[in-house]
Amino acid sequence: MTAALSAHELIARHRSTLDQALEAIRTRAYWSPHPEHPKAYGENGSLDAAAGKAAFDALLGSRLDLGQPGTDDWVGGETSPYGIDLGVTYPHADLDVLLPAMKAGQRAWRDAGAEQRAVVCLEILKRISDRTHEFAHAVMHTSGQAFMMAFQAGGPHAQDRGLEAVAYAYAEQVRTPDNAEWTKPQGKRDPLAMTKQFTPVPRGIGLVIGCNTFPTWNGYPGLFASLATGNAVLVKPHPRAVLPLALTVQVAREVLAEAGFDPNLVALAAERPQALDSARAGGTPIGEGIAKTLALRPEIRIIDYTGSTEFGDWLEANARQAQVYTEKAGVNTVVVHSTSDYKGMLSNLAFSLSLYSGQMCTTPQNLLVPREGISTDQGPKTYDEVVADLAKSVDGLLGDDARANALLGAIVNPDVKARLEGAAGLGEVALASREISNPDFPGAVVRTPVIVKLDGAKPDAEAAYMSECFGPVSFAVAVDSAADAAQLLRRTVREKGAMTVGAYTTDPEVEQDVREVCLEEAAQLSLNLTGGVYVNQTAAFSDFHGSGGNPAASAALCDGAFVANRFRVVEVRREA
Amino acid sequence: MTAALSAHELIARHRSTLDQALEAIRTRAYWSPHPEHPKAYGENGSLDAAAGKAAFDALLGSRLDLGQPGTDDWVGGETSPYGIDLGVTYPHADLDVLLPAMKAGQRAWRDAGAEQRAVVCLEILKRISDRTHEFAHAVMHTSGQAFMMAFQAGGPHAQDRGLEAVAYAYAEQVRTPDNAEWTKPQGKRDPLAMTKQFTPVPRGIGLVIGCNTFPTWNGYPGLFASLATGNAVLVKPHPRAVLPLALTVQVAREVLAEAGFDPNLVALAAERPQALDSARAGGTPIGEGIAKTLALRPEIRIIDYTGSTEFGDWLEANARQAQVYTEKAGVNTVVVHSTSDYKGMLSNLAFSLSLYSGQMCTTPQNLLVPREGISTDQGPKTYDEVVADLAKSVDGLLGDDARANALLGAIVNPDVKARLEGAAGLGEVALASREISNPDFPGAVVRTPVIVKLDGAKPDAEAAYMSECFGPVSFAVAVDSAADAAQLLRRTVREKGAMTVGAYTTDPEVEQDVREVCLEEAAQLSLNLTGGVYVNQTAAFSDFHGSGGNPAASAALCDGAFVANRFRVVEVRREA
Repeated sequence: MTAALSAHELIARHRSTLDQALEAIRTRAYWSPHPEHPKAYGENGSLDAAAGKAAFDALLGSRLDLGQPGTDDWVGGETSPYGIDLGVTYPHADLDVLLPAMKAGQRAWRDAGAEQRAVVCLEILKRISDRTHEFAHAVMHTSGQAFMMAFQAGGPHAQDRGLEAVAYAYAEQVRTPDNAEWTKPQGKRDPLAMTKQFTPVPRGIGLVIGCNTFPTWNGYPGLFASLATGNAVLVKPHPRAVLPLALTVQVAREVLAEAGFDPNLVALAAERPQALDSARAGGTPIGEGIAKTLALRPEIRIIDYTGSTEFGDWLEANARQAQVYTEKAGVNTVVVHSTSDYKGMLSNLAFSLSLYSGQMCTTPQNLLVPREGISTDQGPKTYDEVVADLAKSVDGLLGDDARANALLGAIVNPDVKARLEGAAGLGEVALASREISNPDFPGAVVRTPVIVKLDGAKPDAEAAYMSECFGPVSFAVAVDSAADAAQLLRRTVREKGAMTVGAYTTDPEVEQDVREVCLEEAAQLSLNLTGGVYVNQTAAFSDFHGSGGNPAASAALCDGAFVANRFRVVEVRREA
Repeated sequence: MTAALSAHELIARHRSTLDQALEAIRTRAYWSPHPEHPKAYGENGSLDAAAGKAAFDALLGSRLDLGQPGTDDWVGGETSPYGIDLGVTYPHADLDVLLPAMKAGQRAWRDAGAEQRAVVCLEILKRISDRTHEFAHAVMHTSGQAFMMAFQAGGPHAQDRGLEAVAYAYAEQVRTPDNAEWTKPQGKRDPLAMTKQFTPVPRGIGLVIGCNTFPTWNGYPGLFASLATGNAVLVKPHPRAVLPLALTVQVAREVLAEAGFDPNLVALAAERPQALDSARAGGTPIGEGIAKTLALRPEIRIIDYTGSTEFGDWLEANARQAQVYTEKAGVNTVVVHSTSDYKGMLSNLAFSLSLYSGQMCTTPQNLLVPREGISTDQGPKTYDEVVADLAKSVDGLLGDDARANALLGAIVNPDVKARLEGAAGLGEVALASREISNPDFPGAVVRTPVIVKLDGAKPDAEAAYMSECFGPVSFAVAVDSAADAAQLLRRTVREKGAMTVGAYTTDPEVEQDVREVCLEEAAQLSLNLTGGVYVNQTAAFSDFHGSGGNPAASAALCDGAFVANRFRVVEVRREA
């Protein structure tokens, strides 16, 4: 091997970062090697703001040639939620050529062992990190996130989640030693003695099916978990959010080649855009549907998917040859019972509802408020008062258009816009959505959130609050009591799943009841958030994203179960 | 809690054993706390041979009342493969009463935490260990294993596998700390500070579906992995092998109650015997088929199954609400290419084929021998000579009836006998099976193994060697070359699965080829065994049983993947 990047060099560069990541997942204290501040970039080879923007601009209208085998066409067609056409084209793959080519390098990748795989993954992440400014624009113009969020969530936070997966994958593989000497006493006879060799082996090719809203953040855990455990990885991005993952594949291929491995261990499967059928509004392109084809290929042995419940359920039922990890839809609830910081609660909730126009799988949807009102440090507040005050808080937060644009980003696709427009008809509107213009991007669709009042006791309201209404729509659901709220929370998590649960209460018994529901239904709970941490944000190395135990997701980011079945251990034993 | 057995006391008794088990799974060196020698029992509360036999005899014809709720009948009907009726009856459950009762104790069991659950499991195993002599008779008279094997495999080795699962389950749960303080710097502003609490929570009720041949050895890993991770466990034994698992449930319920937990956390689901349809010979009872009903109950969230591929595939396809761990059929291969110890190879193979009449999921079936013969320390041997010498070796090993009975045990059920009788018609018989009488048990069906010659190049032979023929049947398959053997090995593992692979070769290239096939197809390989370790035996804490990566089994005993998804971690976070 005449690798430009030796294993020795990579270990020297990254072993201490790996060790820190291993320590972080053990203690779950705060840690990150990826700076959150845009000004932290620009030295030691990383792109600063201007260079990142220039790199992104140079991509527009270009052909991103990844050098993949079996490329039979060039496809593209992404339109930014901010109204510009990206015009980038990507290789379209002949799977019968690409998939066998991806398998060719697996033996050397397997034989490299867990540590070398880990440091190669860390080098990939490091080079992505250096290009965070460039990635930020790519994430912004595919997801519709505002720049600062695209920078942080699509950059350092996504890189953290990737690194976390590498750390778990490494730890899992080295739980079993490479070798063992086994000597069993036999009384007066000679002992039995065996020499055993243990090798982690990959399952095959991992398929990552990306989503529209968080292409890197939701894509990196599966990509790096599969790659670090010895598998090749094929990345199938959402047809509206190809660029961030195509750049990721480009970096991965570059690093693999420099480190002496086959670059085809990581490849992209972009789709031909297809005309929409008339039932779907908006005219943005969707793909040819290759996820279904890929998911059933025998070479694909692992699938990581983020997206609709319908397709997630289909994958779980049909892709039987693969380990399937899904993050699907859910209905997130906040129980509002009582608070010692009414103002803090309102501003915390207002931020949660507004961030990225509620287009996060973790955004609260149902706010359960007792109809007789709640107790607060500012005295009792009726249900109507709570809802009105929350509406006022959202209005205040988004009163300035520049700030609103920076928080809301843009509506990611026409489906979300249609749901938002339909929400007003579901009940009494406590806060109407309004249009905001974006001076930088006149084509951006920017909307403030709508809050709709529903009565939890009325059966006709149930269809609304018991379905996921993905986007800037929340329901203030009047409930009979804290016990009623806990019961509705339980039913919602059990039947619909939840990525997050929040609760505000000063009553230890109510807290205990909500906590017990979350433990029994396996939902992650944030209690009494009034400051700068929000229910919809989770920090890698510390917070679990999802639980893998309710219908919203079959996996949690990140834990042992997320990595342990991506490889198997083969033992070769012989007499010593 | 007025528990007779406090957590403190249990930790004092068992923590050091747990720590040793944790060290053993890390180093994979030899270790076991469970004595293999029958004479090691009889002190410190354990039953000696006579007391164990007396305890077993007292069970015969009795009603084993486990004190379970929802018992609506008493069922039984086990007939020993040694020809005696056990006459034990067991509770038959009304599932609509039993399953809710099993859930009632889960909250306290969850709140006890990983360490207390582990030491309760170790106390259960200790009491089972003390009754090893009694269990040995129960295993012998349900599985047909000879006494010494029933004693060791059904006793200490099964207990080892249970303890190994407890150790993995404990280690997995404590990877995440109980609590974390998370403090994130915010430049000049105050840091963000959160307090986080992490709780392992069970999935629900685990279902263990036992098998006929190794009720304890194959039943304990799933039982203890699920229980140690906080789940209740319902044990559904094979209708022909109820007693060993019913005794296990009895001990578990006794310990749980003494430790202050709800005994209904572990329960038995015995079946009503049903008349056989006329297509199945023999007249021994089979069950009413409650495994199918149970497997689809929403309360059942984990299933551990050992048995036929057909039902295992059905479980994987249909029990979608559960995590399913299966051990199914496979076709085990030994590549015979060359050896520096011809005599040792023959005697090692002869033992492997004879042990428990080949009724192990790990017994070799296909012996691939080059048609031009093999090289040995005794000069070249033709294919015919190798097969004839192996037949002679088996004959020699089983020449003495007492020794034959001690090795072979009895044929477990009429299906195995029918397959054995049919095998002679599949090809040229190199070694005919013969009947052996058992002076202690005149009703026992005892048969020596048959070896049938097949030509791997003849398409009509393929149907035989590419199917599992469970029982004392092996095929000496003539192949063209070592490369041909490696190719057939690959195809067999990929299409049919394998619990074990063996190979004899002195050629480093052939060894490398076979090893590569095993790494790529995820099969466990034993090389050049000529002494007292056999390809069909795996030692807990060191050897993996199965790989979980080929069609024979979806799980390996034992690794992180076997335990990591039996629980989820719920996080509760709040501002610090």
